[in-house]
Amino acid sequence: MIKVGIVGGTGYTGVELLRLLAQHPGVSVEAITSRSEAGVKVTDMYPNLRGHYDGLAFSEPDAGVLARMDAVFFATPHGVAHALAGDLLARGTRVIDLSADFRLRDIAEWEDWYGQTHGAPELLEGAVYGLPELHREAIKKAQLVAVPGCYPTAVQLGFLPLLKAGMIDPSQLIADCKTGVTGAGRGAKVGSLLAEASESLKAYAVSGHRHLPEIRQGLIAAHDGEVNLTFVPHLAPMIRGIHATLYGQLVAEPEADLQALFETWYADEPFVDVMPAGSHPETRSVKGNNVCRLAVHRPGDGNTVVVLSVIDNLVKGASGQAIQNLNLMFGLDEHLGLQAPALMP
Amino acid sequence: MIKVGIVGGTGYTGVELLRLLAQHPGVSVEAITSRSEAGVKVTDMYPNLRGHYDGLAFSEPDAGVLARMDAVFFATPHGVAHALAGDLLARGTRVIDLSADFRLRDIAEWEDWYGQTHGAPELLEGAVYGLPELHREAIKKAQLVAVPGCYPTAVQLGFLPLLKAGMIDPSQLIADCKTGVTGAGRGAKVGSLLAEASESLKAYAVSGHRHLPEIRQGLIAAHDGEVNLTFVPHLAPMIRGIHATLYGQLVAEPEADLQALFETWYADEPFVDVMPAGSHPETRSVKGNNVCRLAVHRPGDGNTVVVLSVIDNLVKGASGQAIQNLNLMFGLDEHLGLQAPALMP
Amino acid sequence: MIKVGIVGGTGYTGVELLRLLAQHPGVSVEAITSRSEAGVKVTDMYPNLRGHYDGLAFSEPDAGVLARMDAVFFATPHGVAHALAGDLLARGTRVIDLSADFRLRDIAEWEDWYGQTHGAPELLEGAVYGLPELHREAIKKAQLVAVPGCYPTAVQLGFLPLLKAGMIDPSQLIADCKTGVTGAGRGAKVGSLLAEASESLKAYAVSGHRHLPEIRQGLIAAHDGEVNLTFVPHLAPMIRGIHATLYGQLVAEPEADLQALFETWYADEPFVDVMPAGSHPETRSVKGNNVCRLAVHRPGDGNTVVVLSVIDNLVKGASGQAIQNLNLMFGLDEHLGLQAPALMP
Amino acid sequence: MIKVGIVGGTGYTGVELLRLLAQHPGVSVEAITSRSEAGVKVTDMYPNLRGHYDGLAFSEPDAGVLARMDAVFFATPHGVAHALAGDLLARGTRVIDLSADFRLRDIAEWEDWYGQTHGAPELLEGAVYGLPELHREAIKKAQLVAVPGCYPTAVQLGFLPLLKAGMIDPSQLIADCKTGVTGAGRGAKVGSLLAEASESLKAYAVSGHRHLPEIRQGLIAAHDGEVNLTFVPHLAPMIRGIHATLYGQLVAEPEADLQALFETWYADEPFVDVMPAGSHPETRSVKGNNVCRLAVHRPGDGNTVVVLSVIDNLVKGASGQAIQNLNLMFGLDEHLGLQAPALMP
Repeated sequence: MIKVGIVGGTGYTGVELLRLLAQHPGVSVEAITSRSEAGVKVTDMYPNLRGHYDGLAFSEPDAGVLARMDAVFFATPHGVAHALAGDLLARGTRVIDLSADFRLRDIAEWEDWYGQTHGAPELLEGAVYGLPELHREAIKKAQLVAVPGCYPTAVQLGFLPLLKAGMIDPSQLIADCKTGVTGAGRGAKVGSLLAEASESLKAYAVSGHRHLPEIRQGLIAAHDGEVNLTFVPHLAPMIRGIHATLYGQLVAEPEADLQALFETWYADEPFVDVMPAGSHPETRSVKGNNVCRLAVHRPGDGNTVVVLSVIDNLVKGASGQAIQNLNLMFGLDEHLGLQAPALMP
Repeated sequence: MIKVGIVGGTGYTGVELLRLLAQHPGVSVEAITSRSEAGVKVTDMYPNLRGHYDGLAFSEPDAGVLARMDAVFFATPHGVAHALAGDLLARGTRVIDLSADFRLRDIAEWEDWYGQTHGAPELLEGAVYGLPELHREAIKKAQLVAVPGCYPTAVQLGFLPLLKAGMIDPSQLIADCKTGVTGAGRGAKVGSLLAEASESLKAYAVSGHRHLPEIRQGLIAAHDGEVNLTFVPHLAPMIRGIHATLYGQLVAEPEADLQALFETWYADEPFVDVMPAGSHPETRSVKGNNVCRLAVHRPGDGNTVVVLSVIDNLVKGASGQAIQNLNLMFGLDEHLGLQAPALMP
Repeated sequence: MIKVGIVGGTGYTGVELLRLLAQHPGVSVEAITSRSEAGVKVTDMYPNLRGHYDGLAFSEPDAGVLARMDAVFFATPHGVAHALAGDLLARGTRVIDLSADFRLRDIAEWEDWYGQTHGAPELLEGAVYGLPELHREAIKKAQLVAVPGCYPTAVQLGFLPLLKAGMIDPSQLIADCKTGVTGAGRGAKVGSLLAEASESLKAYAVSGHRHLPEIRQGLIAAHDGEVNLTFVPHLAPMIRGIHATLYGQLVAEPEADLQALFETWYADEPFVDVMPAGSHPETRSVKGNNVCRLAVHRPGDGNTVVVLSVIDNLVKGASGQAIQNLNLMFGLDEHLGLQAPALMP
Repeated sequence: MIKVGIVGGTGYTGVELLRLLAQHPGVSVEAITSRSEAGVKVTDMYPNLRGHYDGLAFSEPDAGVLARMDAVFFATPHGVAHALAGDLLARGTRVIDLSADFRLRDIAEWEDWYGQTHGAPELLEGAVYGLPELHREAIKKAQLVAVPGCYPTAVQLGFLPLLKAGMIDPSQLIADCKTGVTGAGRGAKVGSLLAEASESLKAYAVSGHRHLPEIRQGLIAAHDGEVNLTFVPHLAPMIRGIHATLYGQLVAEPEADLQALFETWYADEPFVDVMPAGSHPETRSVKGNNVCRLAVHRPGDGNTVVVLSVIDNLVKGASGQAIQNLNLMFGLDEHLGLQAPALMP
């Protein structure tokens, strides 16, 4: 039994880790920390977990306790993993960080977007970007994994086959993304109130969003060259789900069928589902589930390729992908804890 | 491996059986029928099941195929199980009927509420009402189980401890119930459109609802005498969930604590959760899950007892309870297929 | 043109006053105060008002400015109107208070429920409870009106005809109420987040809610005797709307038709709509509108009467009713500013 | 008083005409037709209209009755206006068609997209495309107006200033659009059920949507040359609203500020609101209202211009724009019936 701890467990990615790990046969959650809720039983805050974690309470973060774990998940605001990861790694505990602390390779860029000094630049070299579809072998050997952001997961998985195959112009990429409100976290913000966010849809952060450099970094690596990406996120009136609608310009008449390209690319991926030609994946088809469903279109046989990519932002976009990484890091079946079909309807 | 078939699999209770059974280690779904969708792959209609039932397609109902099953679920409109169950039972296949065909003991009452002649009165005596909290031992031996309706499950589980203990006046029971729209099924009705049913709440069928006689039958048996129940269902703007708010008048100053009464009554029940005193269970705390959560209140220490009872109408109110029955009928662990925590948020 | 000011204009009742008054031909909003948002343009916070209040900004409350108004609305937390109303009244400005400050006649009871000392007991005698259906003549002469709460409006309008006619037992009243989340205000509370409150329904405050004494006070006056009311509020996943489901026990076989009783009682009321027999009013049928729609049922011709009462909590339950009061106080057509039909769908 | 009739009044655009016209001081609705609901009172189907149209019932379409109207709105499926408009026009009744019958100038293209023979090619020359921001003077003199579709309104208003000014490349236009479910009408379709469409988001008709040729026709006229548009509509889980996110590639470094370009272009338009630089318009800011709110962005000062355009699909996207056209055709104040602010929250 792999013993895990969760740092910062009161947010949505924390409870989602608990929900999924309750079905994982090889993992035992031994500690979950929260400064603000220390002493509160987990099931008092999340009654859906009654019967599953009845003895577990939030505790103050304690380095000694955490270091006794085989792995620690960070489901924390930016900067916390910087402060705590080094010590854990030194004591042999593997770290799976759901925050953005180790996602960007460029320290200056990180500091620019996150508005604070990078707290652990010495750990960056060992950090692996936890997108299994790109870095599975490195993840298997990693001590420290940076779990990708929600938008970056949906966007990269959609663009990668086209960019890798050199089929679209990297200087004209557009990602029009729509997210449910859990993307904004569990913080009590007026804009996330049901009375404000339901029955409405809006774009936000059009001038620049923190996931933009993360996506760019991934696309640049895939393409092996500069890319130009316009990324417009939107807030949709739903709890979960990301729908990324991706636009690229074909650089040449593709020799191969685009559908076949995607199917081949992801043929062996357990959590990427290339849907039949002509499909329109719905976000609800992955609600609570770790799959990314993709469809590729070429409207009117024109020059523009449209990729539709849906994930559950809390699962493949956060906690599910974190568990997929854990499974890889510990040599387990990649599906463990992640088998349940999406909840639909 | 228990081989099961599902008759009428295109509706919400059908797909919910598939979703839950995908996680059941002892059951294999061998056939699923639908006259209207015969030939269509299950995953084409329900993409959330892609990767789980890739070889399964809806088929025309075929008595020969169904009779080769160990058990058959009926997720059909009223009357279908009447027509088909007898033959299956005669050939040794167990029947678990999610429709109302075998719920009412009184044939005349059934015919009155359902507007058609009862098609299988000879099977009624052998039919067991599948509420495990009342009839677990009979279910274990049953060949034919009538799975309770959604409202009847939530209401009976809330009233039973009080009625059995003789603590409330059976002549003045009120059940004010709120359901999500899946309670109305997957039929294309104007009143169930998002544009009609969201951002609104209304009562319906105040003059009489088909679940009223079913609830009354259960309460009369529990109380061993006549009851008078006012049952008002409401449509709430959500997909899943029933919230039953139950009102009873105390007949005497209770000697025991009401909280203790409920806790004792349900101490050994795997799928009834009596929440701590003062709780207000939310329907989302059982979303996708087979638990019924209960709380009992006595506002102002007055004469009125208020019980709050929540279930997922598609799980404990239908398909989950059906699987709980199957587990009992086949001597399996009652939890199989039903362990996953509710999806929250 | 009647000059009005709004104290505490950033909340939902404040913006709803602005929305409705934009269509009122006889009123000009001259000032709107907010300590936290002083200096911010109203249309920056509420872009739906662009083109209607382009010159108006929130300002610090200024007694001198407010005293130049013909009327001042208080859309404030409890206690603010206590502090400011006396001075305004002394200078001849009429006060319409949407808070609970002057609703309860019993000072001790107010202090008990609101947890603070009553700040203006000397004004209570002159305060009129602004339910026009009960107190129209007094409102016309009032200088200070206490606008009823949202639940109290829906519940009292539903019970009044029955209680006044002596047809139901005042010792056994039940009000099962469902509200949209704007009832909880615009404060940034976790429980009001879309991710927490949508796709769910729950009861709250079953042990006691501040609207209980207000409803009781009204029903006692109507009945001219003690009443016993069980009041259970529920949070429903929608923005606006209250659905009150009211239960009473008939004390005798009613001589008159219940439908006729209601129709007669409200025949001349401009904002109470008794729907045809057998109706089930939907909350959306009053979305944005000042009408209370009622239906009365007697299921199975039994002893229990069920009244269905729907309002928009922000309109007839707050700002619309406040404007209805203003119209009466200033001798205007009671409909002014309140004519637009509900938004449906 | 202008006497108007509505043909096909049971759908969402029909009831929205009634809702808005109830506040129009110069119009009287004298007839509303529906074959399926003939004889039914309008208020029985739409209780929000109780007190506004109490004497009005749906009637069989009767050419004689309709010809006595000053104007007739068609809120009908495709083809109906083709059949009836000619006769009405011949008798001097003005026709405002909310269907697509007269939107496309190219008959072959219309027949191709709508799958039937064009029923009134002889009327096309006299038909005016009812986008007042482009064709106000022609509308004033028109006898027959084709009210633009919902997507075409939002997309054209967003692209027009850029195209007219020659600032973006017409060969690379992208319109990523999100609509509420009323865009699919009031028909009872499974995909529009709350249980199917809420808590989800999906693209649809990526390979081609009927509004594509309409938008192209408008953009080609504006640009005076060919355009290449990729149009991807999405279904969002809300009742009303369209959010169009438009992408264009700058052809040259713009001399003028893009913000100023938009503000100047729409300076005198009563129903187009160019929001301050940096804004993100929400669809709810126009709920129930005839305004189109626009914002223009140039992320990272790059080559891509992003325009955000929101409307209420049933108002500026249908019935409100129809009334705006009527006001122009009859020489009335363009605002009549359309003054009420949006409902927010």
